[in-house]
Amino acid sequence: MASPLRIGLAGLGTVGSGVVRMLARRRDGLAAATGRAVEVVAVSARDRNRPRDCDLSSVRWFDDPVALAKDPDIDVFVELIGGHDGPARAAVEAALGAGTPVVTANKALLAHHGIALAAAAEASGAGLYFEAAVAGGIPVVKTLREALIGNEIERVSGILNGTCNFILTKMQDEGVSFEAALAEAQALGYAEADPTFDVDGFDTAHKLAILASLAFGLAPDPEAIHIEGIRSITLADLNAAEELGYRVKLLGVALRTATGVEQRVHPTMVPKHWPIAQVSGVTNAVAVDGDAVALTLVGPGAGGDATASAVVADLADIAAGRGAKPFGIAASALRPAELVAIQGHEGGYYIRLAVVDRPGSAATIARHMAEQNISLESIMQHRRGRPHGGERADAAADPAPVVLITYATTEEAVRRAIAAIEADGVITAPPQMIRIEKD
Amino acid sequence: MASPLRIGLAGLGTVGSGVVRMLARRRDGLAAATGRAVEVVAVSARDRNRPRDCDLSSVRWFDDPVALAKDPDIDVFVELIGGHDGPARAAVEAALGAGTPVVTANKALLAHHGIALAAAAEASGAGLYFEAAVAGGIPVVKTLREALIGNEIERVSGILNGTCNFILTKMQDEGVSFEAALAEAQALGYAEADPTFDVDGFDTAHKLAILASLAFGLAPDPEAIHIEGIRSITLADLNAAEELGYRVKLLGVALRTATGVEQRVHPTMVPKHWPIAQVSGVTNAVAVDGDAVALTLVGPGAGGDATASAVVADLADIAAGRGAKPFGIAASALRPAELVAIQGHEGGYYIRLAVVDRPGSAATIARHMAEQNISLESIMQHRRGRPHGGERADAAADPAPVVLITYATTEEAVRRAIAAIEADGVITAPPQMIRIEKD
Repeated sequence: MASPLRIGLAGLGTVGSGVVRMLARRRDGLAAATGRAVEVVAVSARDRNRPRDCDLSSVRWFDDPVALAKDPDIDVFVELIGGHDGPARAAVEAALGAGTPVVTANKALLAHHGIALAAAAEASGAGLYFEAAVAGGIPVVKTLREALIGNEIERVSGILNGTCNFILTKMQDEGVSFEAALAEAQALGYAEADPTFDVDGFDTAHKLAILASLAFGLAPDPEAIHIEGIRSITLADLNAAEELGYRVKLLGVALRTATGVEQRVHPTMVPKHWPIAQVSGVTNAVAVDGDAVALTLVGPGAGGDATASAVVADLADIAAGRGAKPFGIAASALRPAELVAIQGHEGGYYIRLAVVDRPGSAATIARHMAEQNISLESIMQHRRGRPHGGERADAAADPAPVVLITYATTEEAVRRAIAAIEADGVITAPPQMIRIEKD
Repeated sequence: MASPLRIGLAGLGTVGSGVVRMLARRRDGLAAATGRAVEVVAVSARDRNRPRDCDLSSVRWFDDPVALAKDPDIDVFVELIGGHDGPARAAVEAALGAGTPVVTANKALLAHHGIALAAAAEASGAGLYFEAAVAGGIPVVKTLREALIGNEIERVSGILNGTCNFILTKMQDEGVSFEAALAEAQALGYAEADPTFDVDGFDTAHKLAILASLAFGLAPDPEAIHIEGIRSITLADLNAAEELGYRVKLLGVALRTATGVEQRVHPTMVPKHWPIAQVSGVTNAVAVDGDAVALTLVGPGAGGDATASAVVADLADIAAGRGAKPFGIAASALRPAELVAIQGHEGGYYIRLAVVDRPGSAATIARHMAEQNISLESIMQHRRGRPHGGERADAAADPAPVVLITYATTEEAVRRAIAAIEADGVITAPPQMIRIEKD
């Protein structure tokens, strides 16, 4: 058997200690599969004395992750520090500069500096592995980079943030508001005290930038992504979606179009029968549409053990001598990603309007849609305050929610139609608009 | 750039010509990703003059696939002939003996001779790749062998035969019999004139043998699998399943138990919310339960392009220098697979009985279940011929279907209970029994 693969690991949180435990537990299996023992020989973390649920008695300790990354007696540097600058970036750059392969779970680092790091890896001949950076335990990086290499990819779409999917599932299942579902996510540790990064779509965007790079040969670039979060989604939207045969999910979508690769993160209505629609709670899912294969992967997007599983898979690839260019092709061949204006997006739309309940309102709405050449698949009106079908004296003043589903059109047309409806004074609250993604 | 990877390809049916076309279409992408051109330089097929939808003008032709496999001017031999003996086996053995890596889609060959072929590959240093042999375009071989290597696998379960899933979906969606759905599958080309291999579970068993080998370090062995097909499934079963919150799927399941790895192929009731339950038509799905990650993959299990995609992924691995032991660990380390008697299977059961409709029948059934310590989760009785709830004079003679769902028990207990019920004369037709698989 070849000499052991010596791991230097920086960052001993949930994932880091999970990796240490998994390597110990699967010691024999990994050696049998790869032909080498895989051993953690050195670690670095902020607090040496914090109690940790893993055995570090025989490893060397580094206070400075950069010093660990440069250590000549490690064969691989594992970065689990986090953050797209600071020590994580410095340590990864140091390792790659020294020709030491890097395994990282750091999506922010890759989304922001992926192309420079990939170039550094190629220059020194060190590999850069990041299965754990996207969708935790789902092997979507390997799948795009290796398993679907025979395909021209047409679209990658995914539920990439478990926090948002938990919140949307909770709202629908228990009939609670966004705020109540968020509070529960925070109580359970699924959401941070400041939930912006998750619920406003930035975390999903980081992961999407990496997937779009792998699928379309683009430089990863969060600036090229149109981003909307889920704060505006109400229970009324979820219920209307259910009634119409859809679910609402926060999706990251990268789609090849005639004008470029459209990258967007926003709440999306997906048909119920699409496997992605069935994914509930913190679970993640990625659907890849290639010209030969349409594949959906469903699994845990976060959690110490699931993310550790992805890190260990990368380590096994290194131990077995398996490699690939970080983003599939040479860093110099990656094309710049450009923001495709969302106004040009084509697809169906869900539109919910609080309409002044008086004769002619529906006709006004329909006319403005027709003026933009928007065809309606359905129009659904729920009259408020009349659960038993009775008439009320003040009906004329009471806003009634009207839900429209359009056939494929452009976002520009939809926005113009909504602006015209607003200008006409037939709606009493800001309109809601959710893009529909077909399977 | 390195020298081209020269492919010799035997078998030019749907998959073979799909591979030739895909390699041409993705020529630049594959070279950019792997650093080598991947080129078909020689082919072999039964009929040289048959028109084929791919360009073979510049390749050498071999009448004998074994001669092609031994040709020193190929770098990889691709076997798409099929059949577990005959020319496919001879050619693969010849290539591996000559140290030439082999890519094959031949599940029967691997299920029957996998361990010998893996040993031959290891002896000569040639790789043996077979992503296309299981579940077509779903990269489950790579996922088990590489991506989930950090996991102890507890269970692999899958819809591995599109023909059966098409038939079961058709029966349920259109309310037709097994025979009618099979006839439609045959008309559409999804099923052979003699459908035995598909509908009686043998095709699923071949694939399961390979998955169980990868997941549990066993020698692939179809003889170690308990096999039942779907011929006995009736519309009444599908409708009862729907009502009870389940779907009926032909699953291949390999499960680690205290006594060994239980490998079985049989119609299975799966909870509707499990991603696998949602998979309809010819689509395949595989669920892998590891100790760190539970993953479900959904995609096309057959078809020329989808299977070609898996073959091309293997070729890209070879071109990029990525390899693994065929079944994950050395062939000599694979343990023999042993048939675990199905009588020892533990789980819930669905039982449908045509019961003599007279006072005391239900009590008799319940008593026999209780005598075997079987707890019932539900008992559902549909009275025949009384759609409007009226009484009929001949009610006592009319058999009424009774559907039972048990809590987890052993198959032995269920079989004893059913035998006792039969002996008591309270049922008028052979009982139906379907195992329940929980997610």
